[in-house]
Amino acid sequence: VIEAAAQANTTPKPGAADPLFLRACRGERLERVPVWIMRQAGRYLPEYRALRERYDFLTCCRTPDLASAITLQPVDRLGVDAAILFSDILIPLSGMGVEVRFTPGPQLSTPIRNASDVAKLRVADARETTPFVLEAIRQLRGELPTHVPLIGFAGAPFTMAAYLVEGGGSRSFDAFKALLYREPRIAHRLLDLCTETVGSYLTEQVRAGAQAAMLFDTWAGLLSPDDVRAFVLPYAQRVLKTVSGIGVTEGCAVPTIYYGGESAGWLEDCRDLGAHVIGLDWRIRLAEARIRLGPHIVMQGNLDPAVLLGPADDIPRHVESVLRSANQGASGDSAWAAGGHIFNLGHGILPQTPPDHARRMVDAVREISMRPA
Amino acid sequence: VIEAAAQANTTPKPGAADPLFLRACRGERLERVPVWIMRQAGRYLPEYRALRERYDFLTCCRTPDLASAITLQPVDRLGVDAAILFSDILIPLSGMGVEVRFTPGPQLSTPIRNASDVAKLRVADARETTPFVLEAIRQLRGELPTHVPLIGFAGAPFTMAAYLVEGGGSRSFDAFKALLYREPRIAHRLLDLCTETVGSYLTEQVRAGAQAAMLFDTWAGLLSPDDVRAFVLPYAQRVLKTVSGIGVTEGCAVPTIYYGGESAGWLEDCRDLGAHVIGLDWRIRLAEARIRLGPHIVMQGNLDPAVLLGPADDIPRHVESVLRSANQGASGDSAWAAGGHIFNLGHGILPQTPPDHARRMVDAVREISMRPA
Repeated sequence: VIEAAAQANTTPKPGAADPLFLRACRGERLERVPVWIMRQAGRYLPEYRALRERYDFLTCCRTPDLASAITLQPVDRLGVDAAILFSDILIPLSGMGVEVRFTPGPQLSTPIRNASDVAKLRVADARETTPFVLEAIRQLRGELPTHVPLIGFAGAPFTMAAYLVEGGGSRSFDAFKALLYREPRIAHRLLDLCTETVGSYLTEQVRAGAQAAMLFDTWAGLLSPDDVRAFVLPYAQRVLKTVSGIGVTEGCAVPTIYYGGESAGWLEDCRDLGAHVIGLDWRIRLAEARIRLGPHIVMQGNLDPAVLLGPADDIPRHVESVLRSANQGASGDSAWAAGGHIFNLGHGILPQTPPDHARRMVDAVREISMRPA
Repeated sequence: VIEAAAQANTTPKPGAADPLFLRACRGERLERVPVWIMRQAGRYLPEYRALRERYDFLTCCRTPDLASAITLQPVDRLGVDAAILFSDILIPLSGMGVEVRFTPGPQLSTPIRNASDVAKLRVADARETTPFVLEAIRQLRGELPTHVPLIGFAGAPFTMAAYLVEGGGSRSFDAFKALLYREPRIAHRLLDLCTETVGSYLTEQVRAGAQAAMLFDTWAGLLSPDDVRAFVLPYAQRVLKTVSGIGVTEGCAVPTIYYGGESAGWLEDCRDLGAHVIGLDWRIRLAEARIRLGPHIVMQGNLDPAVLLGPADDIPRHVESVLRSANQGASGDSAWAAGGHIFNLGHGILPQTPPDHARRMVDAVREISMRPA
């Protein structure tokens, strides 16, 4: 099964069968800007809420039929250019020895606060501990239309460690940051364990058929640029290298995407991470991001999700502004799609978003980016 | 009384009597880098917690004897170069018609969500509604040593409006952002009312004797750079202009400081705000901030407060790194103090900080910045 999936996964030949989103990840020149939405499968959709009345969140994540059904929900409704597996970045923690409940925010059974807590953690082998994720991916590859590639994803090591230490969500993750500065060696050991776990988790998703691999480093922006270099980027880089590595040895090179929250202060450092695509929040103009990332990185983002709470008729104007900013930095070419840009929100879609507004955004990206710039 | 205070407030003649901190705000060349700490009077100090066992938070803010006693607590203990009035940015809300309780986070009696809510708000006249703040300032000017100037402060209009709409603290202020995009005209009316209130509040603090005026825009970073231009900066600029205006008409020019949270993506826009000093969080290197702010703005910041939770012996290394970054951008001069830099944390000191670590930071700034660079 693994070999077959790996084969299915091989970079397809150029032409109509090669999905727009994957060509965008490779930095190719395109007929229009592709678009998808972070958390496009989830709480803002009534069909998702209907399913959740019968099954709790973890059951949805752990049941391949449910996870794949939920993943498919937004694809036709929105007309997006990629699907992303319905799951949660904390799903691999169970395999490390930490149980997570969602109430609805995550609550961990035992926060990791010292050396002996860290010593009890295991590196999770994805095939043993999260086979349901791999099965959902295999199912989805049979169910998704060929022009809609499937993105697999994981939390980046730093963001996983943030939850492990804090024991749940937090505004400023003080306990986690205290550990980083008080006990940097313990923190690095924890980050190592997360790196191994995430590396296995994302690699196996690719082997199961995920056509792109995205690393979510939502909490990277907790630190100063120097400490991002110490605690955040080396670990993300290792995972990205591991995932890209299967491309070399198994002929299934997948594009990688790194999303770092609040990265405006250290964006230059994302150039050499090894990711094909850098996801950006809305706190920086794409024109500036392009200058700081250089010409070879594809940018993904970065409309403020709160814009979709405003009137539907205002959405195209905001979309155009993001497209224009992405294009402004494009060297010597005025076509929208030459900007090395995948349209997305700057963070996950808000649960209170009207689904029609999400559709309006997708349509606007399509329409505007096909017009002459 | 007002005239006398204004007189006392006039920019002093250069020389030994002219406090280091004020000379730093004016961009003068100094013998060392001055230092103070945001929230230096507060929960991390046992002498503050002892007072709070007898008086609740609002009583401390509203009683001049208590507010001034708390303001003085850290001055000798830490050896800082400035004092900042003990208060809270939400204190003026009561005069606008909204009561706030602290439990300990702020909870507003009635969140402002629509046009009729906004219509009920009043512009607060500081002399009528917050005389206790002005009285505390007058007392403090008699009690503080002359080399330790007193900073008055207020929340910036955008940050005040964020609390008014949300009804309290929040991670992402979704209700506030929804109002901005759904009802921009109502939002602008609310921001106008906050601007008038804050303008009066900060102006009267200066007239009462505050020697510098700081505007806290903690939540500015909620928005994209374009929306920061629409909703954040014009209002901050109006307040700063009003406060600077008293300098012109009443001969009591005070330095102004603007602190915008998560400003790395729109720092260039802070150049023309009219503030003498820009406060920065820890998410950007000061060397980069210097380039983007140009040579004429003084920078204040920006050590990550969590560093003070680590071992005391690590603190000087982190302090030196911030000093070095501030100096790196200084044009053609290698002395630390030529960098146009006031040392501070990048955000308020954390309540769990050992007071000795704060002292260690202050001492390190003093020692390192007096050494040849």
